[in-house]
Amino acid sequence: MSAHSHEIEEGLSFQPRFDASGLMTVVATDVATGDVLMVAHMNDEALRKTIATGEAWYFSRSRNALWRKGEISGQTQRVVEIRTDCDQDAVWIRVEQIGAACHTGRRSCFYRKVEAAGGGAKLVFADAEQLFDPSAVYKK
Amino acid sequence: MSAHSHEIEEGLSFQPRFDASGLMTVVATDVATGDVLMVAHMNDEALRKTIATGEAWYFSRSRNALWRKGEISGQTQRVVEIRTDCDQDAVWIRVEQIGAACHTGRRSCFYRKVEAAGGGAKLVFADAEQLFDPSAVYKK
Repeated sequence: MSAHSHEIEEGLSFQPRFDASGLMTVVATDVATGDVLMVAHMNDEALRKTIATGEAWYFSRSRNALWRKGEISGQTQRVVEIRTDCDQDAVWIRVEQIGAACHTGRRSCFYRKVEAAGGGAKLVFADAEQLFDPSAVYKK
Repeated sequence: MSAHSHEIEEGLSFQPRFDASGLMTVVATDVATGDVLMVAHMNDEALRKTIATGEAWYFSRSRNALWRKGEISGQTQRVVEIRTDCDQDAVWIRVEQIGAACHTGRRSCFYRKVEAAGGGAKLVFADAEQLFDPSAVYKK
């Protein structure tokens, strides 16, 4: 292992590594249940704002814009802990989620299970409950 | 929302969406603790094998190869549940992890916390314990 890799993996200097698009993968889990709420992305600015403010900021690839989680829906995330992984190209945040993380109104984006079925796979709802009405929250 | 988007988000047909490199992001959490163990990638074949065998398979971007988790280290992952997210471009797997998920020998790849420090950030070990010696396991 190179000295640089050793420093990235074993050191205490935060050197976040963004991909060619300037983004890193972020996993947000619910501090109360451990459930994965969402997988999203941060750019350098979103990461800095998250660390500085204790609220989750992301970068939306579809809208190509910085985004404070909940700025439209009110469903904000208070960040309890931030961790980074061995090669510092991903971040795990443990959050207190207000309401629903998912734009469909569900608590988590991962509301369907994948189950083996006849050589392939099918989906089964694990939690179908919608905590808000998306059509009322996200007006055109 | 288009009929296609509605089907992806609300339907029970599993239509995994891979990126331009043929990969999707996978989050593996420890079924016992809820901790995030690792963030990695699957291609279509890895996803199919994971569903069919109940063991976690990934695709390594650095080695450009399909990879059964633990095939070298013995630190395998038995998959208890698979979920997909609203737009079906990510997968969350809940696993029983044998030993350590991280190639550094730690239980989780996310063994360091990110903490605000003087306008920037520093890292602090959350769990430094190494369950195996990487230099003994991964021989050149």
